[in-house]
Amino acid sequence: MTAPLAANVAAAEDTVTVALGERAYDILIGDGLIHGAGAEIAARLPGARAVVVTDETVAGLHLAALRESLAGAGIENEVLTVAAGEASKSFSVYQDLVGHVLEARLERGDVVVALGGGVVGDLAGFVAATVRRGMKFVQVPTTLLAQVDSSVGGKTGINAPQGKNLVGAFYQPALVVADTASLSTLPPRQFASGYAEVVKYGLIDDPKFFGWLERDREAVFAGGQARVSAIATSCKAKARVVAADEREGGVRALLNLGHTFGHALEGATGFSDRLFHGEGVAIGMCQAFRFSARMGLCPPADAERVESHLKAAGLPTRIADIPGDVLAVERLMNLIAQDKKVTRGTLTFVLARGIGKSFIARDIAADDISAFLVDELKK
Amino acid sequence: MTAPLAANVAAAEDTVTVALGERAYDILIGDGLIHGAGAEIAARLPGARAVVVTDETVAGLHLAALRESLAGAGIENEVLTVAAGEASKSFSVYQDLVGHVLEARLERGDVVVALGGGVVGDLAGFVAATVRRGMKFVQVPTTLLAQVDSSVGGKTGINAPQGKNLVGAFYQPALVVADTASLSTLPPRQFASGYAEVVKYGLIDDPKFFGWLERDREAVFAGGQARVSAIATSCKAKARVVAADEREGGVRALLNLGHTFGHALEGATGFSDRLFHGEGVAIGMCQAFRFSARMGLCPPADAERVESHLKAAGLPTRIADIPGDVLAVERLMNLIAQDKKVTRGTLTFVLARGIGKSFIARDIAADDISAFLVDELKK
Repeated sequence: MTAPLAANVAAAEDTVTVALGERAYDILIGDGLIHGAGAEIAARLPGARAVVVTDETVAGLHLAALRESLAGAGIENEVLTVAAGEASKSFSVYQDLVGHVLEARLERGDVVVALGGGVVGDLAGFVAATVRRGMKFVQVPTTLLAQVDSSVGGKTGINAPQGKNLVGAFYQPALVVADTASLSTLPPRQFASGYAEVVKYGLIDDPKFFGWLERDREAVFAGGQARVSAIATSCKAKARVVAADEREGGVRALLNLGHTFGHALEGATGFSDRLFHGEGVAIGMCQAFRFSARMGLCPPADAERVESHLKAAGLPTRIADIPGDVLAVERLMNLIAQDKKVTRGTLTFVLARGIGKSFIARDIAADDISAFLVDELKK
Repeated sequence: MTAPLAANVAAAEDTVTVALGERAYDILIGDGLIHGAGAEIAARLPGARAVVVTDETVAGLHLAALRESLAGAGIENEVLTVAAGEASKSFSVYQDLVGHVLEARLERGDVVVALGGGVVGDLAGFVAATVRRGMKFVQVPTTLLAQVDSSVGGKTGINAPQGKNLVGAFYQPALVVADTASLSTLPPRQFASGYAEVVKYGLIDDPKFFGWLERDREAVFAGGQARVSAIATSCKAKARVVAADEREGGVRALLNLGHTFGHALEGATGFSDRLFHGEGVAIGMCQAFRFSARMGLCPPADAERVESHLKAAGLPTRIADIPGDVLAVERLMNLIAQDKKVTRGTLTFVLARGIGKSFIARDIAADDISAFLVDELKK
């Protein structure tokens, strides 16, 4: 089963190498790459057997193509399908998958292939990281969010009753195959949600990339070379940060731009369809820039440019854009305090001195954030 | 509560550094070190809070001393106690501990301290490895087995219904505090079981150490400087191998000398008190040497020396030494085939060309092993 290509797709491809010494790996980006995934895996992991972890939605769209490609490369494979959605990142689904992989008698040299979005990648990655203390792992991300963010950098994990992503491991894949054609099957709202993470890389430290996105956003949404370029630039940016700080001891925290506010908003809306992850990040990035401007750190015009670009991309930029009940400041503050990026009780935020000038700000006073949120809720 | 010191204990101490680059850490070995554990942790992890994971037996013997030491160093701490024994290395106990650590709001910079033997170390280590994708971890091993083997090298994990240690992570501690005085509270059978792993390091590649053990075994059992030396030499040997091969891609497999046969025997006796882990390893090492001699690889006199030394230490050396029903060859072969050290279907064993001359033998024919086991069961 081949996803239909958009009309203007050229034969565009790019490769990004994540430079992590003996754990270095390639991210292959291009239209239709799923058909060559088997050959790429066989070349890197000769003789390996595979278990494909996917969800019900993605299985209907892309599983046949992937299995055909694996079979064509002589890779014996089984499939484990989980329910689509965040609820699958649970202890019980994790334990169930581990049991199936062990029953299939896969060994350390065999491979877990994640076919899907961030949920499938995080879950399958944690299975790969922990079965026999670490099997081989390959990501075939099928959402924009997964292609530019969650499949790069080795964060794997599941959720706990106490919060999202609180249990997991840093575990690098052996290969990422990002088939940009698979994005053509995404609902537009989900594509836009992933686009928020693309914009993030410009806002962190690449004002030229942000400028390019301002000019060429429509081409990125349309597909083809512009889309491949946007994804490759994003992967390169993330790969650079990950290579410098694999286990999030320092500079990697910049990747959390927009995420502290964003996670709180996601939590306050129950991690529901009211607010997708990237939508929370979009609002969160706007808030990080507005808060930076309010603190006199960043030109207000830059905060406005950020908001205007995200709005043009169809993303929410203010709390009022979230459908449903108004959120309470106390609840948001509680969620922010619980966020795992809190270090020894003080609040740490990624703020900005302008577009492409993000920095890690420690010891932010909770009162300043509260007062800011009170005003945000009036907007 | 201080464990009584044996009469002949001198103020003996040694430090072994595990050279793993940015993950390097010290193993402190000496009499009474538990009383200084808090200060050593505080020096390495300033400001960290702690959760101590221990079992009911060890809690009664050493928990008060450890907590006093943590409190004395200003380390806020909580205690999580599990049932003693292998059954605690389960998904459900793991999930329960993870929940408690998250409820206590410990952060990445805080520390999980394992106080106990291999079960507690493996379990607590896997919790530390996976909560928030990795917290700090300190081992305070209280058995000889844990001091010379399981606390060194970063293997953590739990058991699955499919077998032992099938789920876990390679995760290095920040510090190991091996208080040799705590070994004086061990039942003699458990001390002897740990001693099998000490002997193993001589058999792998250190014939001088094996010769020293042959002469000074009684002094090692008595305590004092000889015991500290034996433990330090063992830790150094393991640290050297781990530093060369952290994730068991090659030479680290030598540490499995005696373990393939041993695990099968443990499995066949239901991982019960009929056969302790080190006892299985003792029989397994004798079998590895006897099999090597049978294949013409090793002088029979060396196999006899190994058996004679382990027997003198009070350890079993033959299947007939295991109390209870005779085991079946088919069952043992099945368990050997299931062993996780099987690579792509071929049987890999650690064999020996003599004492201190162990090597990894691949492609061993299952028929040769079967025929050998038939004879072993007649002995």
